[in-house]
Amino acid sequence: MELDFKGIQVIGFDADDTLWVNETYFRDTEERFAELLEGYETKNKIDQELFKMEMENLELYGYGVKGFMLSMIESALDLSNKSISQQTISEIIDLGKQMISHPVELLDGVEEVLEKLKGKYRLIVLTKGDLLDQERKLEKSGLSQYFHHVEVLSDKKELNYKNLLDHLNIDVSEFLMIGNSLKSDVLPILNLGARAIHIPFHTTWAHEMVNEEEQVNNHLKLNSLRDVLKYLEH
Amino acid sequence: MELDFKGIQVIGFDADDTLWVNETYFRDTEERFAELLEGYETKNKIDQELFKMEMENLELYGYGVKGFMLSMIESALDLSNKSISQQTISEIIDLGKQMISHPVELLDGVEEVLEKLKGKYRLIVLTKGDLLDQERKLEKSGLSQYFHHVEVLSDKKELNYKNLLDHLNIDVSEFLMIGNSLKSDVLPILNLGARAIHIPFHTTWAHEMVNEEEQVNNHLKLNSLRDVLKYLEH
Repeated sequence: MELDFKGIQVIGFDADDTLWVNETYFRDTEERFAELLEGYETKNKIDQELFKMEMENLELYGYGVKGFMLSMIESALDLSNKSISQQTISEIIDLGKQMISHPVELLDGVEEVLEKLKGKYRLIVLTKGDLLDQERKLEKSGLSQYFHHVEVLSDKKELNYKNLLDHLNIDVSEFLMIGNSLKSDVLPILNLGARAIHIPFHTTWAHEMVNEEEQVNNHLKLNSLRDVLKYLEH
Repeated sequence: MELDFKGIQVIGFDADDTLWVNETYFRDTEERFAELLEGYETKNKIDQELFKMEMENLELYGYGVKGFMLSMIESALDLSNKSISQQTISEIIDLGKQMISHPVELLDGVEEVLEKLKGKYRLIVLTKGDLLDQERKLEKSGLSQYFHHVEVLSDKKELNYKNLLDHLNIDVSEFLMIGNSLKSDVLPILNLGARAIHIPFHTTWAHEMVNEEEQVNNHLKLNSLRDVLKYLEH
C-alpha cells in the first residue's frame, strides 16, 4: 500500500537484520549446537528445547549472545540428563565467543541509503540486545558517522519507544521507524501513532513472529532497504 | 580536603555500591564457587584463576552477571582439567540466576539524601554493566522517581562520560559525580574538569583498584552518602 511520508524529520533504524546480518549466525550456531547434542535427541527436539529454554530465561537474561550461551549450556545439561561431556560444554562456550567476535556483514544497499538520507533527515539507531555487543557491532560496521544518536534498549515495546522519543524530543508525527521485525519495529511504532517501514529479513526468530491476525496494514512493506529511497529521497 | 560545590546543577550517581549493595553478592558467589571447586585447588588459587578468566573475557563479555557466570563455568572446566561434574556446572548456573534475581538492598541514607536533593538539583544515574540488570535493579529499588535520567554505559572511561554529558547538554562546570570507585567514578570525571565525591564501599573489586600514585587529591572523600548533605543541601 502507498503511504505518505510527509513531515518525517527523524528516521530510526533497527540494526540486527536491518543494517547487518544477525539471525543467520544464531541459526548457524543452533545447527552446530544440534550436532554437538546428536545422539541425545532428534534435531527437531533439540531446537524446540533450546528455544523453550531461551524463552524461560528471557526475563532473567534479556536479549543477546551471553544469555543465548547460558541457555545452550543449560539445555545441553537438560537434554543429556547431565551426561553431556565437559568438552562439549567447552565447545558451546567457544561457539558463543565466535558469535561475539564475528565480523559485521552489512546488508545490501545500507551504506548507499544512509549516505543519501544523511543531511536530509536526523538518523538514529534503535536496537535491542546487549549494550556492549551492539556498540561493538556499530563500531565494526563503520556506520557510526551516519547517526545522530544510538540507543540500545532492553526491549522494544511501546513504552520503551515512547520514553525514548520523549527523551530525544521527537514528535511521533515526524518519526519513521525502519526495521525487519513486525513485532518489535512496526507494531509498537504504529500504536504510538508514528510511521513504519517493514523490510523483512529472509530469516525471522520464532520469538519475533506475530500472528497473521495481529498484522496491521497501515505500514509500508519493502523488499530491500534500497527501496526506501523511492519514498524518502526528495 | 574542602572543595567548593558552587554552580553544581546536575548530580550523577553511580549505582552499584553507591545506591545499593552489589559487590557483596559477587564476593558471596565467589565463596560458593570456591567451595564447589574444593579439592581441585586452594581457595586462593581458585580466586586468582577466576579473576584472571574474568579479565581475559572482559573485552568480549563486558561487565555484569551473565559474563561472570560464563567465566565461572570456563574457570571450573579449566581448574578441574575438564573433570568438573555436570551437576556442579548446573549449580554454577543456579548461583548466577540467584544473583540476577536477588532483592535490591539500598545503602544507608540513600532515600533520605535523594529526597532532600530532589528539586534542588537535576539527579541522574550513571552506571555501567548489563542494561537489563541495571534497569531491573533501579525498578526494584523504588528510586526511579528521583531521577531525571538513567544511563547505562558499557564502560566508564573519560570518553564515555564526555559523550554522555554532550548528549544531555550538561556543562562540566555544573556537573558533580558521586560514586564508590576512584577508577570509574572519580578519576575520569576530574580529568574532564568536572567535580567528584568519592564514597568508598567496604569492598572493592580488584579490577576497580587504582595504584596509590594514581590517586589524585582534588576530590572530596566521604564515609557515607548521608554526608553529602553537609555540602550540597543549601
